[in-house]
Amino acid sequence: MPLDNYWQKEEIMPRRELEELQLKRLKWVVNHAYRNVAFYKRRLKELGVHPSDIKKLEDVKKLPFTTKEDFASNYPFGLFAVPLSEVVRIHTSSGTTGKPKVVGYTRNDLENWTNLVARCLYMVGVRKDDVFQNMVNYSLFTGGLGFHYAAERIGATTIPAGVGNTRRQLELMMDLGTTAIHCTPSYALRIKEVSEEWGLNFEGSRLRIGCFGAEPWSENLRKRLEEFFGIKAFDSYGLSEMNGPGVAFECEEQNGLHIWIDHYLVEIVDEEGNPVGEGEKGELVLTALTKEAMPILRYRTGDITFLIDEKCSCGRTHPKIARISGRVDDMVVVKGVNVYPSQVEHSLMKIPEVCGEFQIVVDRKTLDNVTVRVEVPEDKVNSEKLKAKIEEILKSDLGVRVNVELVKKGELERTGGKAKRVVDLRKNS
Amino acid sequence: MPLDNYWQKEEIMPRRELEELQLKRLKWVVNHAYRNVAFYKRRLKELGVHPSDIKKLEDVKKLPFTTKEDFASNYPFGLFAVPLSEVVRIHTSSGTTGKPKVVGYTRNDLENWTNLVARCLYMVGVRKDDVFQNMVNYSLFTGGLGFHYAAERIGATTIPAGVGNTRRQLELMMDLGTTAIHCTPSYALRIKEVSEEWGLNFEGSRLRIGCFGAEPWSENLRKRLEEFFGIKAFDSYGLSEMNGPGVAFECEEQNGLHIWIDHYLVEIVDEEGNPVGEGEKGELVLTALTKEAMPILRYRTGDITFLIDEKCSCGRTHPKIARISGRVDDMVVVKGVNVYPSQVEHSLMKIPEVCGEFQIVVDRKTLDNVTVRVEVPEDKVNSEKLKAKIEEILKSDLGVRVNVELVKKGELERTGGKAKRVVDLRKNS
Ligand SMILES: [Zn+2]
Ligand SMILES: [Zn+2]
Repeated sequence: MPLDNYWQKEEIMPRRELEELQLKRLKWVVNHAYRNVAFYKRRLKELGVHPSDIKKLEDVKKLPFTTKEDFASNYPFGLFAVPLSEVVRIHTSSGTTGKPKVVGYTRNDLENWTNLVARCLYMVGVRKDDVFQNMVNYSLFTGGLGFHYAAERIGATTIPAGVGNTRRQLELMMDLGTTAIHCTPSYALRIKEVSEEWGLNFEGSRLRIGCFGAEPWSENLRKRLEEFFGIKAFDSYGLSEMNGPGVAFECEEQNGLHIWIDHYLVEIVDEEGNPVGEGEKGELVLTALTKEAMPILRYRTGDITFLIDEKCSCGRTHPKIARISGRVDDMVVVKGVNVYPSQVEHSLMKIPEVCGEFQIVVDRKTLDNVTVRVEVPEDKVNSEKLKAKIEEILKSDLGVRVNVELVKKGELERTGGKAKRVVDLRKNS
Repeated sequence: MPLDNYWQKEEIMPRRELEELQLKRLKWVVNHAYRNVAFYKRRLKELGVHPSDIKKLEDVKKLPFTTKEDFASNYPFGLFAVPLSEVVRIHTSSGTTGKPKVVGYTRNDLENWTNLVARCLYMVGVRKDDVFQNMVNYSLFTGGLGFHYAAERIGATTIPAGVGNTRRQLELMMDLGTTAIHCTPSYALRIKEVSEEWGLNFEGSRLRIGCFGAEPWSENLRKRLEEFFGIKAFDSYGLSEMNGPGVAFECEEQNGLHIWIDHYLVEIVDEEGNPVGEGEKGELVLTALTKEAMPILRYRTGDITFLIDEKCSCGRTHPKIARISGRVDDMVVVKGVNVYPSQVEHSLMKIPEVCGEFQIVVDRKTLDNVTVRVEVPEDKVNSEKLKAKIEEILKSDLGVRVNVELVKKGELERTGGKAKRVVDLRKNS
């Protein structure tokens, strides 16, 4: 395949070379963290580990995990490894306590990050002829500036549209001839809703690529969006703690997300932090191999996935992760069965009457009282038949019975384009 | 003076060299517009002007004006001079009709723009050691990304804070040790209000530089902000049609804004478009000398100012414009006297009881019925004494009598950080 199908040569580097690069970088980052971040020096010393103990990739298991709580207790700059004068950007994201997580970038970090997101966009066909409408929050959220810099680097006509004002977004899409969009899947659904209200369709529009991320979404939602917008829809994965977007992204195969292992070392672990079996589901753990401002070792992302390490027809040599099936924190245990919001979404999307939004309401940690609130058109709210149909499908898909409550379309609260998938009533009592 | 006080050598280029550069660039841009923008070719032909007629700087007067209406009638891409594949960014701003003004940038345009804003920030002392909190709207508004790219280019720790959530902004300022901020003057007032409610002061904070723009503000407001925040406050001027911010900016002298004439050719004209006398007030007209994606000739900005062309102690050779005293559209004629909102603001700021926001309410175009609504603390709303005092000060400063109406603090509507200064009731009748 000609190299101009790839943004960077590392994308098709033979696996052995990639692993050599990983090891070289792992040694560098452990040393960097040890020497320049008091928190890591202390942790490593507690474990009796010295940077010189990292001799092969498997030695990553000797290192301590990093958690969200470590961000809270090191607020604001405790995890920084360089002086602020070398930090050219700061982002924040909501943290576990009242204080946000603070992440910093050197100029090299921004350069790496921009290229990683550019790899993703280039992989799904974004080129300098494209008009790229970036419909996510700019400012502190990494999704906005992360995609912005990358699209601009590729040379696409980048529209920093931001989120909200859906009619204006549609106007821009139509008037400026947008060919590629980026937003959350729930905001894409919102655009679809408004288009339908407005009697607008995308036949004959130039739109052909949709990048959706920042929350889990299902295969069935993919089909709906692809059909309505006349696009190919791709899943985007990233998190601020690992720069932002650009950690993993689907290729044209749409079957798993290539994860850029030259910059992120991947592990999949169980609840105790032990490696799961090959191809098994577990929590994604990432070590940032190149971050200067903020080296992060073995970060417990809280995201549930599994590794797909097969040859891909696109030619990229980086393994893939399966689409995120949920958050460790969002998992609901119903009569001993693990239920993720993404599974519920996947099932609901099979039912044409369902308008897209839903909520899982939990009364007690385990067992019985789980209700799924589902939005349907107003004239269906009292349909016992529809309720029974949904309950049956959910039971068959989830392997456990849940209650269904039908609510009017638009009734469930949407916050900043994202719908809250799990409502835990225990927290109010 | 050592060159490291300047971001670019053009800032201190001898005037004659600057004028040579201007002429070279003027010839280039007229040619570029003529060949690549059908609208300009038609306009120039109608006037019987050919690019080869531009032989000296004064020949700019042969060129047609460009107005806001020209943006509307050329929506969306009629003023673009390059194919979209060469355009890497689009911004929009509110237009005169329902459609926004669309502005485009090539990679070189972004490069020039970034350096122009970097000149401004560097001029007032922003360096790589600074922590720069950018508290304006990102996305389509040019103020956000314009300052962001420049601060990052200088190497300051740039926080893309965006606008709103004032408590979070204050938390970031305190926790991250912000040394320089950028926002609208009304948003700065809002931050002051919230700080006061919160019992917060800036003694001992690291904050030292404030950049305020996107709306006119007064010397008295400057004093208030400087005193409260413990900063030096600088006025910023720019508009999307001329890239965005970075057109003109105050230096340490705080006496007029250096306007970067190697990129923007300046004229000051009267209502008929004729040049005003030396140092006289009029409408600022700008010709973009280097813009590739969108060359704009003789743009009527609608902003009222006058030229200050004296040697400046900072060493920069670029002339200055006076702070914008108002918009052509915002000027109110009271009994034959021109009144600008900025004059009213300046007067009101002398009165300690006034909380900062006010509104001029116009009943008929000229003459009599002009009322100024002024926010005061709740217990002063009925004070006839305060009302009379304000009326007297306004009469003495404006040279004409206006009615004053006292309203409760917080009563006047604020939209997106900007307060509407002139309310024209005629439009409702
Ligand atoms: Zn692939
Ligand atoms: Zn000066």
